[in-house]
Amino acid sequence: MAEVKVDLGVRSYTINIQADCINNLGKVLVNLAAGPKVMLVTDDNVFKLYGPAVLNILKQAGFSAEVCCVEPGETSKSLKVAESLYTAAIQMELDRSCAIVALGGGVVGDLAGFVAATYLRGVKFVQIPTSLLAQVDSSVGGKVAVNHQLGKNLIGAFYQPHAVLIDPKFLFSLPLKEFVSGMAEVIKYGIIRDEKFFDYLAYDHKKILNYDIESVEYIIKRCCEIKADIVSNDECEEGLRMILNFGHTIAHAVEKASNHQYTHGEAVAIGMYGAGMLSAAKENCSYKDVEKIKALLVAYKLPLKAEALDKQTLFSYIRHDKKILQGKINWIILRQIGQVFIDNTIEPQQIEAALDKLT
Amino acid sequence: MAEVKVDLGVRSYTINIQADCINNLGKVLVNLAAGPKVMLVTDDNVFKLYGPAVLNILKQAGFSAEVCCVEPGETSKSLKVAESLYTAAIQMELDRSCAIVALGGGVVGDLAGFVAATYLRGVKFVQIPTSLLAQVDSSVGGKVAVNHQLGKNLIGAFYQPHAVLIDPKFLFSLPLKEFVSGMAEVIKYGIIRDEKFFDYLAYDHKKILNYDIESVEYIIKRCCEIKADIVSNDECEEGLRMILNFGHTIAHAVEKASNHQYTHGEAVAIGMYGAGMLSAAKENCSYKDVEKIKALLVAYKLPLKAEALDKQTLFSYIRHDKKILQGKINWIILRQIGQVFIDNTIEPQQIEAALDKLT
Repeated sequence: MAEVKVDLGVRSYTINIQADCINNLGKVLVNLAAGPKVMLVTDDNVFKLYGPAVLNILKQAGFSAEVCCVEPGETSKSLKVAESLYTAAIQMELDRSCAIVALGGGVVGDLAGFVAATYLRGVKFVQIPTSLLAQVDSSVGGKVAVNHQLGKNLIGAFYQPHAVLIDPKFLFSLPLKEFVSGMAEVIKYGIIRDEKFFDYLAYDHKKILNYDIESVEYIIKRCCEIKADIVSNDECEEGLRMILNFGHTIAHAVEKASNHQYTHGEAVAIGMYGAGMLSAAKENCSYKDVEKIKALLVAYKLPLKAEALDKQTLFSYIRHDKKILQGKINWIILRQIGQVFIDNTIEPQQIEAALDKLT
Repeated sequence: MAEVKVDLGVRSYTINIQADCINNLGKVLVNLAAGPKVMLVTDDNVFKLYGPAVLNILKQAGFSAEVCCVEPGETSKSLKVAESLYTAAIQMELDRSCAIVALGGGVVGDLAGFVAATYLRGVKFVQIPTSLLAQVDSSVGGKVAVNHQLGKNLIGAFYQPHAVLIDPKFLFSLPLKEFVSGMAEVIKYGIIRDEKFFDYLAYDHKKILNYDIESVEYIIKRCCEIKADIVSNDECEEGLRMILNFGHTIAHAVEKASNHQYTHGEAVAIGMYGAGMLSAAKENCSYKDVEKIKALLVAYKLPLKAEALDKQTLFSYIRHDKKILQGKINWIILRQIGQVFIDNTIEPQQIEAALDKLT
């Protein structure tokens, strides 16, 4: 089994990546000395596909599980739904030694993680991400959150999972659009940290888009390694970790301006292309690198532009991004494929020039 | 100025204890490199007494503050009120570099701390406790929480403040009943960790009950030292920190069974007397020690018994305490004044025998 260790002192944990590794869930919980009760948080769609099998695995290992099914979709990431999970946990008398297991995509993982972080000031938490986006991004690194009416992920915590089980076979049931959305984050890891990996994604894109299990397992592992390395060095996003936001300043604006008509990955693709243009315009990287990024995004059927959106609307959302610190936006700027840096000196007209090319 | 350091690696912080140390708030925020906006959380009663002065101190130091006044009392420790604070923070565009300052008793500190822990995954947090209970207990150690309809403090986090400012002069405005409630926790520190301090509390009880400023400053400092030492060794209550719960298993039951007719301190006094009786009955300490505890509680006008309450009701609440782990209650048992230990082998009939003496 591929294992990636996230090195965070007493909060270290292991990411298991392998087809069928879900069968080890019982053993993983036993190793964590988890109490006899388990709260399984999932959504209706995922439960139909994998719920009964997971419940059976838990039962075989001697755990008594209760299922909390939330509605699929972003609206479940709310304080209100979190409150209903607290109620369920209290009513089933889940104690501090017990685990909450998240089975699903980013919404389920973020929501269940927030509840695990805050119920009784923190209980054990196991992530079983079922979408590519969750497998390479949201399930690793400890960012958990719910949304506020006025913005996404504004209420949350840094709370590391106690274990992560990634079964690439889950992806077989994913629609191509969602798989491709995850690929945007995969490509991001290549751009910010690993040129060879970037080249591999270009070289093997047909196999990957055909869900070739070995290729997919490899890319998940490489993404987790890169993220684990970054998170180990900067758990609470005080410096290095910010580079994971490459493309995300524009992406968040695209998501808001389009009222989430773009998937997260599509928005990130547009944002990465924009950030690349911005970098080249500031002469920090060559336009040749931006062309390479463009070609890779196109190969994975990801968009480059959000033509229907209004430039000024995007610009206004960018200026109110939640990551602004004391009035300054920390842009992640490309030096060359595999190398980025943080720059908070980008001028408004440079941002507008980049947006011109996206809209 | 008396300073107590809480040693927690990167999360270390200093507790400042001195009359008028509130005047240093601006300097403290500057030293924390806090952003220009401050959200001041307080309650209506406390705001009337100290709000304008604190706002003036912030203004003088160049900070722009917004006040969020909650209603006094336990009902403000809810997810609903927390949500209104998130909204206020978003609307004032409080960013990650900024601080939330809690000015008030335990309710305000716990609530503001929970919001500080979870807004944008954590912002700077400064505690200015105004009640004795908050000064010696809830403001130090990083336990923050809101209540759930089904129980107190069930939703929370371990989130250390970035600074604590304790001004003993605040206590002058406290009703004696509330001051005495805080004294129960003060006495607890002597019982669990420091016999000399216990003896001092007996010797100087008249001065202390007369709010003698030097005596009060000293007892706050000693309590904070003891708590800081315990928390530094066990931040997340996995072992040693549990001894801070001495008397609290019974106290929580008394609070619930009486529908909070007893103050927290009164309930803790009854709980400590009960835990003492339990300890002596198991021959872990002498009845002489229990008599000494009884005499000290009486000297501070604290109750020993909850005569109006039903033994079976108390017993049932004890068996459903949220600190139960895998069906076992961790009792804190007295060996002698200044020394306690954790024991999860207490039998139901021993608990009932102790409750007999309290009801």
